[in-house]
Amino acid sequence: MRLVLPVVAKLPGNEDNLARLACAVRLLHRRGVRVRIVTDAQYMGLQGSQIGLLRQAGIQVRHDQESGYMHHKFAIVDGRMVITGSLNWTTQAIQNNRENVLVMEDAEYVKPFLDEFERIWEEYNPI
Amino acid sequence: MRLVLPVVAKLPGNEDNLARLACAVRLLHRRGVRVRIVTDAQYMGLQGSQIGLLRQAGIQVRHDQESGYMHHKFAIVDGRMVITGSLNWTTQAIQNNRENVLVMEDAEYVKPFLDEFERIWEEYNPI
Ligand SMILES: [Zn+2]
Ligand SMILES: [Zn+2]
Repeated sequence: MRLVLPVVAKLPGNEDNLARLACAVRLLHRRGVRVRIVTDAQYMGLQGSQIGLLRQAGIQVRHDQESGYMHHKFAIVDGRMVITGSLNWTTQAIQNNRENVLVMEDAEYVKPFLDEFERIWEEYNPI
Repeated sequence: MRLVLPVVAKLPGNEDNLARLACAVRLLHRRGVRVRIVTDAQYMGLQGSQIGLLRQAGIQVRHDQESGYMHHKFAIVDGRMVITGSLNWTTQAIQNNRENVLVMEDAEYVKPFLDEFERIWEEYNPI
């Protein structure tokens, strides 16, 4: 599973979608699914950040380096399904905003996201 | 043409994509294309806003009412093509951010955006 979210680190309230998301991700990881996460550096250190917990669980996380803004909000599941849209995966956005989310399995649409993931995964390699 | 953008009103610099976008939209309008725009109230009054000019040109504009955030960034062309993604259509975002934009003509994907447009167009009706 590949997750590219700018806001894996923001805690908008008690009913925390991000904590639940992180919990599901850790479960997948424990079951042997390869999980890789790209996040935005500006959000990593915020209160309620799930990134530290995910890293402690052994999940690979990379983040952008200052310049510009990692504004993607997509996930790729099993290399064949992409979930993308305007939505930042927070309770605030889900409950209050007008947003769109697309779930697509057509290779034509999934391929560019797979390519972009691998591109930024390499680009954000800390070494 | 249906345009749903949170940031039709923000001016990021001199090379202003939004002014160029507004110019293209006015041209379409003058040629008889029906153009409807939905924007976010918070951005409408900002410096560099194109909304006043578009309205003066006779283009219909509606905006959300306070609560929540109109976070869509999509356009529908001729009722059959949708342009959507993470991208706010500003020079800053285009030049500096990691973003994605999808251009889709499959009715399966276009239909929900058409429906959402008509839904928010009615919801944001000021009368
Ligand atoms: Zn955003
Ligand atoms: Zn936004």
